[in-house]
Amino acid sequence: MKRLRIFKVGGNVVEDHKRLQLFLKNFAAISGSKLLVHGGGKWVSATCEKLGIPVKMVEGRRITDAETLEVVKMMLAGVANKNVVAALQALGCNAIGLTGADGNTIMAHKRPLKNGIDFGWVGDVDSVNSTIIHALLDAGLCPVFAAMTHDAQGNLFNTNADTIASTLATGMSALYETELVYCFELPGVLKKIDDPQSLIQKIDSNNIDGLKNEGIISGGMIPKIDNAFDALRSGVKAVRICNADDIQHFDQGSGPGTLISL
Amino acid sequence: MKRLRIFKVGGNVVEDHKRLQLFLKNFAAISGSKLLVHGGGKWVSATCEKLGIPVKMVEGRRITDAETLEVVKMMLAGVANKNVVAALQALGCNAIGLTGADGNTIMAHKRPLKNGIDFGWVGDVDSVNSTIIHALLDAGLCPVFAAMTHDAQGNLFNTNADTIASTLATGMSALYETELVYCFELPGVLKKIDDPQSLIQKIDSNNIDGLKNEGIISGGMIPKIDNAFDALRSGVKAVRICNADDIQHFDQGSGPGTLISL
Repeated sequence: MKRLRIFKVGGNVVEDHKRLQLFLKNFAAISGSKLLVHGGGKWVSATCEKLGIPVKMVEGRRITDAETLEVVKMMLAGVANKNVVAALQALGCNAIGLTGADGNTIMAHKRPLKNGIDFGWVGDVDSVNSTIIHALLDAGLCPVFAAMTHDAQGNLFNTNADTIASTLATGMSALYETELVYCFELPGVLKKIDDPQSLIQKIDSNNIDGLKNEGIISGGMIPKIDNAFDALRSGVKAVRICNADDIQHFDQGSGPGTLISL
Repeated sequence: MKRLRIFKVGGNVVEDHKRLQLFLKNFAAISGSKLLVHGGGKWVSATCEKLGIPVKMVEGRRITDAETLEVVKMMLAGVANKNVVAALQALGCNAIGLTGADGNTIMAHKRPLKNGIDFGWVGDVDSVNSTIIHALLDAGLCPVFAAMTHDAQGNLFNTNADTIASTLATGMSALYETELVYCFELPGVLKKIDDPQSLIQKIDSNNIDGLKNEGIISGGMIPKIDNAFDALRSGVKAVRICNADDIQHFDQGSGPGTLISL
């Protein structure tokens, strides 16, 4: 089976012209089939502020009211997505920008109230259209997803980019050997958060319980790792967590950051 | 050769929710291969005003400075394009939203100074990537183009939607029997501008000179008709100018509006 790598990169890289250029240069050079999922949340907040739309967050999650959804379309599907696509084209990578509505690639439903909180136009992902995504990859294209989905009833949703990446990896795993790569600002999963030398190179069924019990994996890293294992149990071959600046090491054997496997 | 219809619809339809829904309902029902090019210029101007960016026009053409280009990405590639795509998906039409950068579909170069006027980030179209557009159509997708192009060096351009439509029709005519359909607010080319009953059903080499000499085709209609004949001479099979509200008549024999052929 052919390999497909699904990269997720956050707004902190997309919104920083210099870091984005470096990331995309490395991304474009990686051989084989690949796709990219990107965020851009700070640009959404900044544009909301410029337009006088109040930014509402609950527990770090955005409340996407109707006006905010328009700004998500503007900044994620518009500015962030097209900047990434145009930059990749200049690097010789034939990128095609998508939301989940484009090609009916990612279906979702409006999130129901959670603990009485209405998150607004936020989508919980239902399914991935692997046939169309395969056709795009087969045509030599590199899909670049803005973190939006749709319900095939005319509604677009703001959707968590990590979730989109893992759903794409799971959904494509019937056709490809999929590897899910989360790019962030640290070298990977660290034993000590402030020591970049303390990288854990491999997490699997053998050491995960120990790492949790010792408190090495804690806080915000727990849901990330749990989601990684969920993806692995749903057919994804490998999950990697690494620094967005380190992806040039992909074609050199072991790969950067922390490798998570079953 | 298979037929491909290229529709162009202006911002006046895209920006009016009710008219857009009617237009897209009719568009989705048209059989055969088709693609859509849309504008959205009033939304660009309105958003520029909200963000305090001066709207600069020379002879009805927008000066696209760097800040305005960001708004073009927001409103054309973002809001307008994704609204059209999501609405078409709800109508069972598998739309995929594109700019010329996506899939490297439309190449352009920055417009040089014209009569000393710097139009800014405006693109003059060079070529169309018929291979990729064919691959998308072949996958059962309906490409929906926001009126933007790129230069494969990382630059995106604001580009005239009529020009994009005619360049797409010309560029695809090696692979398809192409028909270019300009949708606007009148029933077609009229003998008397204020009499909808005075529709000219057919313009060709036999009557074009007479219509011009008699002053029936005049003013803003002259460049439109000249561009239509240019497209016909470059391989496009037929050009049609019709009301955006009339496209339900396409599968019923003669088709709506004015048919222009050689």
